[in-house]
Amino acid sequence: MIRTHDAGTLRASDAGTTVTLAGWVARRRDHGGVIFVDLRDASGVVQVVFREEDAHALRNEFCVKVVGEVSARPAGNENPDLATGAIEVVASELTVLSEAAPLPLPVDDTVTASDDLRLKYRYLDLRRSGPAKALRLRSRANQIAREVLHARDFNEIETPTLTRSTPEGARDFLVPVRLQPGTWYALPQSPQLFKQLLMVAGMERYYQIARCYRDEDFRADRQPEFTQLDIEMSFVTQDDVIALGEEIVSRLWSELADYQVQLPIPRITWTDAMNRYGSDKPDLRYGVELVELTEYLRGTAFRVFAGAIDAGGYVGAVVMPGGAAQTRKELDGWQDWAKARGARGLAYVVLDAETGEPKGPVAKNLSPEHLAGLADQVGAKPGDAVFFAAATERREAQELLGAARIEIAKRANLIDESAWAFCWVVDAPMFEKTDDGGWTAVHHPFTSPNEEWEARFEEAPDQALAYAYDIVVNGNEIGGGSVRIHRADVQSRVFDLLGITPEEAADKFGFLLEAFKYGPPPHAGIALGWDRTCMLLSGNDSIREVIAFPKTRGGFDPLTTAPTPITAQQRLEAGIDAKPKATAGTPGTDGQAAPVLHSN
Amino acid sequence: MIRTHDAGTLRASDAGTTVTLAGWVARRRDHGGVIFVDLRDASGVVQVVFREEDAHALRNEFCVKVVGEVSARPAGNENPDLATGAIEVVASELTVLSEAAPLPLPVDDTVTASDDLRLKYRYLDLRRSGPAKALRLRSRANQIAREVLHARDFNEIETPTLTRSTPEGARDFLVPVRLQPGTWYALPQSPQLFKQLLMVAGMERYYQIARCYRDEDFRADRQPEFTQLDIEMSFVTQDDVIALGEEIVSRLWSELADYQVQLPIPRITWTDAMNRYGSDKPDLRYGVELVELTEYLRGTAFRVFAGAIDAGGYVGAVVMPGGAAQTRKELDGWQDWAKARGARGLAYVVLDAETGEPKGPVAKNLSPEHLAGLADQVGAKPGDAVFFAAATERREAQELLGAARIEIAKRANLIDESAWAFCWVVDAPMFEKTDDGGWTAVHHPFTSPNEEWEARFEEAPDQALAYAYDIVVNGNEIGGGSVRIHRADVQSRVFDLLGITPEEAADKFGFLLEAFKYGPPPHAGIALGWDRTCMLLSGNDSIREVIAFPKTRGGFDPLTTAPTPITAQQRLEAGIDAKPKATAGTPGTDGQAAPVLHSN
Repeated sequence: MIRTHDAGTLRASDAGTTVTLAGWVARRRDHGGVIFVDLRDASGVVQVVFREEDAHALRNEFCVKVVGEVSARPAGNENPDLATGAIEVVASELTVLSEAAPLPLPVDDTVTASDDLRLKYRYLDLRRSGPAKALRLRSRANQIAREVLHARDFNEIETPTLTRSTPEGARDFLVPVRLQPGTWYALPQSPQLFKQLLMVAGMERYYQIARCYRDEDFRADRQPEFTQLDIEMSFVTQDDVIALGEEIVSRLWSELADYQVQLPIPRITWTDAMNRYGSDKPDLRYGVELVELTEYLRGTAFRVFAGAIDAGGYVGAVVMPGGAAQTRKELDGWQDWAKARGARGLAYVVLDAETGEPKGPVAKNLSPEHLAGLADQVGAKPGDAVFFAAATERREAQELLGAARIEIAKRANLIDESAWAFCWVVDAPMFEKTDDGGWTAVHHPFTSPNEEWEARFEEAPDQALAYAYDIVVNGNEIGGGSVRIHRADVQSRVFDLLGITPEEAADKFGFLLEAFKYGPPPHAGIALGWDRTCMLLSGNDSIREVIAFPKTRGGFDPLTTAPTPITAQQRLEAGIDAKPKATAGTPGTDGQAAPVLHSN
Repeated sequence: MIRTHDAGTLRASDAGTTVTLAGWVARRRDHGGVIFVDLRDASGVVQVVFREEDAHALRNEFCVKVVGEVSARPAGNENPDLATGAIEVVASELTVLSEAAPLPLPVDDTVTASDDLRLKYRYLDLRRSGPAKALRLRSRANQIAREVLHARDFNEIETPTLTRSTPEGARDFLVPVRLQPGTWYALPQSPQLFKQLLMVAGMERYYQIARCYRDEDFRADRQPEFTQLDIEMSFVTQDDVIALGEEIVSRLWSELADYQVQLPIPRITWTDAMNRYGSDKPDLRYGVELVELTEYLRGTAFRVFAGAIDAGGYVGAVVMPGGAAQTRKELDGWQDWAKARGARGLAYVVLDAETGEPKGPVAKNLSPEHLAGLADQVGAKPGDAVFFAAATERREAQELLGAARIEIAKRANLIDESAWAFCWVVDAPMFEKTDDGGWTAVHHPFTSPNEEWEARFEEAPDQALAYAYDIVVNGNEIGGGSVRIHRADVQSRVFDLLGITPEEAADKFGFLLEAFKYGPPPHAGIALGWDRTCMLLSGNDSIREVIAFPKTRGGFDPLTTAPTPITAQQRLEAGIDAKPKATAGTPGTDGQAAPVLHSN
């Protein structure tokens, strides 16, 4: 080692010790003949005192080696805010290891630069304490998760990332294969099929901190590559997976966020979550629950509500405490907010702060009886506002109210930012209707119906429940999983309901179905979104903060300027424009239809 | 959990306990009214005794749940070869969790199937104890390496795998970018540039068990994706990295191969390794060292040797103990062996077992004096054979002798297969000549010259030495690394020598060079080839054995049949045939020439 000590570890007890330090010039102050330098390394910062002229040449972010003696600071000059604030190092020798050009991005925790600039100079950005700390936290999070899993006899197993394209769901990233021109690998959207194969293989307990790839349209906080803590277990029930998930989460929050998660984490059914919070990932840091008014308002003359009720739909409301004090402009703002979400608007009444009298556009349309009982029905007090939603599709109205609930909590300052509210959302529906009247799997087609529905999910597909579970914290889904189907007869019935013919199933998942012929064990799993989990643990509000080299909009990397065009020779060699051979080199499995190929 | 106990953990002390087990039928034997089933789970095997008829339906690899009572085996029926051999489980209840079709691959440790069949049914192959054990060992190897690294304050940091193509060295795998049509990501051949950026970022200690990609022509044991334990450290010297590497290796071999590595591991210079063993990854489990004869044979009339000597080349020999006993056919076989390696042949003399008299084709061409002193000169005894190589290029002849040395050890049975012989090969050359008379970097252009050569490597590029080190065990290079250049002036001189203009450097490594303007620390690193390391630790001779789902020749996966053709829609959506926009979305860095693009 070039250094003998880490700068941030020096204490008063080290006084008198000669040390060699190495790090960066964080700050330099000239005081006449004396120059003070804050020297930073990975461990922290220490003040170095130079009485020699050569320190004049130092500028911020020079990389230096310093030999000196640790010395107690003169009385009155201690800095209690700094771990090393009791001492300073009186330098006797200075070596500039490398110089720094003028900085495009100040290495200073108080400066906020644009994301593009920060990412272009990510190596300077990461010298700031916040970003560096986020990456260190993530490393420790990995370690904690692994400790839990290895203590429970899990095997860490790497699955392939050059694999087979499954042309459905989200888009695959594709990779041309030079040695078999005209054919392509796909980068995996998750290790799902491989981890199930590992269960068939008898590995029993698998995990992997796995890189996954999804070619989606970029939204604010999406990355083309992301990471999940991926877990699968054999011979277990839903409760076993939930218990494991709770142990990982409680260890993480205990050690990294100084918070003791109360176990067991409360469970809420998917239906309750929708009814009470209008969301399948409810934020439980505050109340503001939805109230259904379908029965209460049955018979109303107000056409917006009556239309929904008569069509077998839903009317509901959510209360904004103190919402009556909003200005007309603020109340109009809610209409814009609703329209931005694709709704026609957001009906409301405000209750007079003095009299409790309901006012506002909707009040005119409701009968005196409906108005009189409204406050009691929705649990509103004088001075509150009541927002309504009505729709033929219950879920549509509930989701609007759920979004309004979140917005109310923000505007009414109801969120305790220091709180952590965990829950499991369980008993998720197996199926949802497709636009053409068929059914699609809410999770994926290998998700097991629960015991109650296993024998009869065909009777009421819209009500059938799965052994599927999501873990939610503060309104963020940080993980989810399911018990998988391991019985061929059940799998075949699910495919039938989904309208997947045996031929299609063989084409899409043939190798998995083949594997399931040979004594597959009951198995279940979970995946935690590792970027988001680490983001929350580190107190950040973007996953980019816990990724060493994240991409910006459109998958662009400001640092390397990837992606780039390729050369003609690369294109030729990679076989991008080759036609695949009919058979040689790429034997198909039974029933595998050869996809149509672009002929150019 | 479906089970209460793991099958392989039951012992005599469990007798009388009622247990629920779950696993696979490994073997079934009918003995009249009694059926014995070997039940296998991840923990091992236990014998289950059924007195009921329903066990008749069980076939191999059915997945079952069994309730029963642990019972001491009848005296004389114990099986001392089995950990559970003192007991059996008398079944009272049997549930078939899933059935197994007739097996395409027997789950039996004594059967050897073809690789293609094993990989197509990898989930059955992995139920065999050997393959399963190899994956479990690999998981434990990861854990051990991480324990060492976390104890030394390393941070595990993920680097991008969708990154920028650097069109040199091995070929990149490419990924079309739908959101920026006409541009491509490359999959990284290693995290080299990113880990150096993390050092510039002040992270100081980085590691990652990193997936890497190299689009090479497939040789016997190559995979398109492979894994390395990737490490980089700041403010360190070569010795620090070597010490860390030794700690990891000694922990791995101690815990997983029950072998105590003697530390420090011996170091041999690259030049010594070539001179003594004809290899930069010498197998030190046996002697059979090369002897240089250039001076000894100077003046010989034998044209093959004289030609090399006169041209300033090299003549050397290696001795095969007892090699004189080889038949004429065996000796001719050496000529074929040499020709298969691209040599013209392999000159030899054999020393008569009785008289020590040199015989054979070369003997006729050497002078009586040269013949008389030969045995002493090369350290041969009567009955040995002496093989010669001569070439203008010293390395060429030494490598032929080095290969002969390995072949001699095999044929003469000199290899102790239970031995582990480690060494570091240090002081590697920085440069080697290119065909057009220029120089190329042996390692990569960021490798630092050592102290002795830093100021003057231009004076004798062929002799200049680098701070580069490889760790070798039993003739396998399992890792390597180097101190990196962190001084701009040294880097610039290296580029000059390599004929890389500043413009080219900016084009290829612009973002790294830019980063190096801002106080880069001295840093060094190493990468261990993780597949090969785990292969050796598990006693296997192919890396496929330590990969869950490896590919075969040409990058084909017999299980999923990847790679496959893609659909026309996938091709269209991925933007594979789009022309890149001139500027928008892909801003170039300074000096970056736009590569020529295939126009179709």
